Amino acid sequence: MKIVIVGGVAGGATAAARLRRLDEHAEIIVFERSGLISYANCGLPYYIGDVITDSDLLTLQTPESFLSRFRVSMKVHHEVTSLHPERHAVSVKNLETGEEFEETYDKLILSPGAKPTQPKLPGTDIDKLFTLRTVEDTLRIKTYIEKTQPKSAVLAGGGFIGLELAENLRELGMEVTIVQQPKQLMNPFDSDMAAFLHNEMRKHGVKLALGHTVEGFQETADSVRVLLKEAEPLCADMVVLAIGVTPDTKLAKDAGLELGIKDSILVNAHMQTSAPDIYAVGDAVQIKHFVTGQDALISLAGPANKQGRIAADHICGKNSSYPGSQGSSVIKVFDMTAAVTGVNETNARKAGLAVDKVILSPMSHAGYYPGGKVMTMKVVFEKKTYRILGAQIVGYEGVDKRIDVLATAIHAGMRASDLAELDLAYAPPYSSAKDPVNLAGFMIENISDGTLKQFHLEDIKTLPLDGSAILLDTRTPEEYERGHVDGFVNIPVDVLREHLKELPKEKPVYVMCQSGLRSYIATRILEGNGYRAYNFSGGFRFYDAVMNDRCLIASAAACGMDQA
Amino acid sequence: MKIVIVGGVAGGATAAARLRRLDEHAEIIVFERSGLISYANCGLPYYIGDVITDSDLLTLQTPESFLSRFRVSMKVHHEVTSLHPERHAVSVKNLETGEEFEETYDKLILSPGAKPTQPKLPGTDIDKLFTLRTVEDTLRIKTYIEKTQPKSAVLAGGGFIGLELAENLRELGMEVTIVQQPKQLMNPFDSDMAAFLHNEMRKHGVKLALGHTVEGFQETADSVRVLLKEAEPLCADMVVLAIGVTPDTKLAKDAGLELGIKDSILVNAHMQTSAPDIYAVGDAVQIKHFVTGQDALISLAGPANKQGRIAADHICGKNSSYPGSQGSSVIKVFDMTAAVTGVNETNARKAGLAVDKVILSPMSHAGYYPGGKVMTMKVVFEKKTYRILGAQIVGYEGVDKRIDVLATAIHAGMRASDLAELDLAYAPPYSSAKDPVNLAGFMIENISDGTLKQFHLEDIKTLPLDGSAILLDTRTPEEYERGHVDGFVNIPVDVLREHLKELPKEKPVYVMCQSGLRSYIATRILEGNGYRAYNFSGGFRFYDAVMNDRCLIASAAACGMDQA
Repeated sequence: MKIVIVGGVAGGATAAARLRRLDEHAEIIVFERSGLISYANCGLPYYIGDVITDSDLLTLQTPESFLSRFRVSMKVHHEVTSLHPERHAVSVKNLETGEEFEETYDKLILSPGAKPTQPKLPGTDIDKLFTLRTVEDTLRIKTYIEKTQPKSAVLAGGGFIGLELAENLRELGMEVTIVQQPKQLMNPFDSDMAAFLHNEMRKHGVKLALGHTVEGFQETADSVRVLLKEAEPLCADMVVLAIGVTPDTKLAKDAGLELGIKDSILVNAHMQTSAPDIYAVGDAVQIKHFVTGQDALISLAGPANKQGRIAADHICGKNSSYPGSQGSSVIKVFDMTAAVTGVNETNARKAGLAVDKVILSPMSHAGYYPGGKVMTMKVVFEKKTYRILGAQIVGYEGVDKRIDVLATAIHAGMRASDLAELDLAYAPPYSSAKDPVNLAGFMIENISDGTLKQFHLEDIKTLPLDGSAILLDTRTPEEYERGHVDGFVNIPVDVLREHLKELPKEKPVYVMCQSGLRSYIATRILEGNGYRAYNFSGGFRFYDAVMNDRCLIASAAACGMDQA
Repeated sequence: MKIVIVGGVAGGATAAARLRRLDEHAEIIVFERSGLISYANCGLPYYIGDVITDSDLLTLQTPESFLSRFRVSMKVHHEVTSLHPERHAVSVKNLETGEEFEETYDKLILSPGAKPTQPKLPGTDIDKLFTLRTVEDTLRIKTYIEKTQPKSAVLAGGGFIGLELAENLRELGMEVTIVQQPKQLMNPFDSDMAAFLHNEMRKHGVKLALGHTVEGFQETADSVRVLLKEAEPLCADMVVLAIGVTPDTKLAKDAGLELGIKDSILVNAHMQTSAPDIYAVGDAVQIKHFVTGQDALISLAGPANKQGRIAADHICGKNSSYPGSQGSSVIKVFDMTAAVTGVNETNARKAGLAVDKVILSPMSHAGYYPGGKVMTMKVVFEKKTYRILGAQIVGYEGVDKRIDVLATAIHAGMRASDLAELDLAYAPPYSSAKDPVNLAGFMIENISDGTLKQFHLEDIKTLPLDGSAILLDTRTPEEYERGHVDGFVNIPVDVLREHLKELPKEKPVYVMCQSGLRSYIATRILEGNGYRAYNFSGGFRFYDAVMNDRCLIASAAACGMDQA
C-alpha cells in the first residue's frame, strides 16, 4: 500500500507515524510545503516572547528522525499543486529545484491546515505587517523585532493568537493595542465572561480598541498607520494580522471535492472525503460539533491529532471514527487562565437550544490554605433535560482542571445536576471538600427541584423600580457602601429574619450579594417565610466586572481608544 | 420538626446548614464534644508546619456565625452520651458544667467521625506521644513543639496524616522517621506506585522504617523509645501515632444500631441507619465502593460533606441518595503530588476482578514550553469489559487535574478505551495536544484490538533467560550503559529494522525502553515483520524506581533503618 500525505504538521505527522505503527510495509510519503515538519504551532507566540528560547524545541521531529524511526519519506519544501482523484495521483513541485512531478497513491490524506485570514484591504502588502502561522512567519517576526527594536505593535484580531502574541510582545516591553470589530476578545467566551479577560489585558497595559473596523494600512517613514472607520488611525511600529484562519483548501476545491463552511473539506466520521481513497484531517475539515450536532470549523491541535490517528486507523482497516469536537480550549492570559468547553450561551441560543446557566465564584483550593484564588465559572445547560451544554472558567490556578472535568462530563453525557455527585480528589493545596464543579452541580440540582430560582444580568434592566418588587442587597453595610446596583436596599443576610416584617409578602424579592452564596441563603429564608425570591447569578462581583467592562468598551468605541 | 445532630464538623455542619436552607422553621440543635465546629481537619498538619499561620482559619464557622446565619443551635463542649431510639431522645452531658440532660428529636443525624486507632501497646500514655485528629490535638502538638523544641519525631503510620505531618515537621527542621508494619506508605496506592512516594520522602530526608512492628513505647529522661519487634528501638523527642482511624461509633453500638466493618454504622443510600428516624454520615458509616460495589470505609472530607447534604435532603423530603465513594484523593508530598481514584490493582484483584493496566510517563505539559515535568500514571481496567477500575498518578504539576478527569470518567461509566476520545483543553502551558489521559486511552485502545501486547514488572522474573526468548532494550547505547535489566540486549529502535536478520522469528520478543514509547514502536516493527512482541509497561524508568525502592526497603527491614 502506498499512502501520500499532504502536510507534515499536527494531523499529517500524527497520521504518518500511526500508519507506520499499523503497517510496517506501507510506502508512506509526506509532502510539506514549508521547511519543517511536526512543529509546535501552539508554541510560536512564546518563542517570539523568549519564553521558549531554544528554536530546536519548536521542531519536534525532523525529516531525518521521522525517516530513521518510521521509514516515512518526509519531503519538505515540496508543494502539492493539484490532485487527480480519478487516476489516484497528485502533482508535486519541489520548491527548491523547481522540479515538477506526479506521485501516485493508494490512499491520500489531506492535512493542509488553515491559513491566516487575509482581509481585502489596502496596504496588506506592507513589510511591517505580519501574519503568524508557521515557524517561518515566527522567525520573520522575531528577526524584525531584533533588528528594528519596534516599540509598539497593533494586533488586528483578539483570538488565541492575538492574545498570546499580545502577552508575549508586552513581555518584550512593547506597547500593544488589539483592534477588532467584535466588542469582545475570544469569541468562544460569552461577552460577560470575556469581561474578565479584558480586565486582565488592561491590567497588563494592553490597549483594547474593540468595536472598530479596520479599513486599511498605510506605511509612513518609521511606522504603520492602521486606518479605522469613523475613528482616528492607530499608529505602531509593526502590525500583526490575527483576524482568524480560513481552511487552506484550494487543492480540494480544484479537485472537485465536496466542500462545507468557508470551503472546508467535507468528511464523514472516518475522515473520508467525497472522493474515493482521499481522507482529510485537521483545521481544513468541517466537523460536527459534539454538543450541538451542527456543522462546525474548529481549529485546534487536539482534534487535528485525533483525526490524523483516526484516518490512519481507517486506512489500516480499523473502524475508528471521530465523535466530533467540543472545542475544549484553554489560554494563558498573563497571570490568568481562561478555558472553555462545549458551546457558550450565545451559540447555544443561536443553535435554538433552551438554555439556563449558573455563574459562581469558587476558590481554587481551600481558603485557609495559602495561595487560593477565586475563579469565575459559568456552566450552561439545557432546560428540562439538564444536559450540560458548555462551561467557561476564568481565573488562576485550577481553571484548566475544572474545564477538563466538565469536558469529560459533557463527553460522557452526564446531566448537569449529576455534577453534584462527582467524587473528586481533595486536599487543601488542590481543592475544597466541595469542589467548584460539585458546587455548580449543587446549584443546578437546586434549580431542578425549585430550591433555587435565579435572575440574571440581562434581567436587571427589566426589574421594576416602582416598588412592585423588593430589590435586596444582603451584603454587609460596608460592602454595600463600596458599590451596589441602583434600587437595591441593604439588609444583611444575618439580620434578614428580624426585618421580614418590613417586607410585604405579596411582592417578589430579587436578592443580590457579592458572589451569590449569601443571597441564595437569603432566598431560602424568604421562601421559607412565604415569599417568592430570586437569586442574582454571579453576584455583585460579576455585575460590577461586566458593567465596568461594557462602559470602558463603549467609551473606547466613542473616542477611538480604551481609556483604561 | 426538631432535628438533633451529633457532631459539628464536616458532615454534621453541612447537614445543619442544608437543613436550614430547606426548612426555615425546623428546630436544629448540634452537639459537638470539642470546643469548635466546622473546622478544617485536612488543614491541621499544615498549621503545625506554619504553612497555615492563622489559627482562625482553621475554624471555618463559629457557633455564633452559625446561629446568626442559620439559626442553628451549635452546642460545643456537649457530649452525647447515649441514644434512646425507642423514645426519640439522646442523653447529653455539658462538659463545662457537668450538667446532664435529655434532648428529644424528630430526626437524628449521627456524624461522630472516626478516631485515631489506638494500638494496645505498652507506653501509649506517655505524654510525648500524640495523636492528631482535632484542633485541640493540633494545638497540643504545636505547643509541645514550641515549648520543648524537639529535634526529632517518630511517626507511627504512613497514611495521609503521617505523610503530611512528616513533611510539615521536616519543614520545621526536625529529623523525621516513619515506622510501620506495611512495606509501603499510602495503601490507596499499589506498592509499585508507592515507590515514587518513598523516593520523594527519602529525598527530603525522611527516614523510612517499613516492615517493622512497633511493640511499645518507653519514656527516657529526654526522649521516647519506640520498641520494634526484632530490631533496635527508634529514639525521638516525640512520637505521633497515625496508624489509621476507627469509626467512633460507641453511641450507635450501645443503642443497638446495626453495624458493619470495624463497627461502622450501617446506612442505606439515603444515609438512614437501622433505627427509625436516625441517619448517619461521614467517616463513621459503611458505604458501598462505587467501583467494586463492596462494603467499604472511606474517611475523606468530600464524601462526608456530600453525605451530610443527602441526609438533610432526605429528611426534608427530597429523594437524594449517595451513589457510593470512589475514594478519590490527593496528597502533597513535598514537591510532589500523588493522587488516586477508584480501586488500585491490588484491591481490584482482591475483589476478584480480572484486571489489566497501563503505566505511562507523560509530560505535564508540552515539552517545549518551560516547566513541564514527567508524571507516572497507572490506569487499571477490567479485562474484556474495559471498565475503568481506578487510576494512580504520581508527579508534579497537573497530577490533580488528570486524576479528576479519570474520576469523572469512572463516575460516568466510560470505557477505558474511550479515554482516547476525550476532548480536553490544550495550550502549551497546560497540557499537550495528546493529553496524558488521551495517551492512556490510546494505549488501552491498542490493547483492546491487539495492537499492543504488554508484559509487566511482575513478569520480569519469569522471562526465559535460556535463549528461548529475545529480550530487547531499544534505547540508545548511552542509556543502556547507564543501567539495564539483566539479559536484555541493546538494539536501538531506530536501527532495529537493520538488525532483524539477527533475530529468529520463532522466538517471542520482550521489548523495553526508557518509558515505553520507543519499545512500543519496536514491537510494531517486530509484529509487522512476523514476530510476536511484547512491550514492557512503564519502561526501564519505572522498573528502576521500583526495584531500587524494594532494595532499600529490604535492607532497612534487615538492619533496622532505611539506608537512603
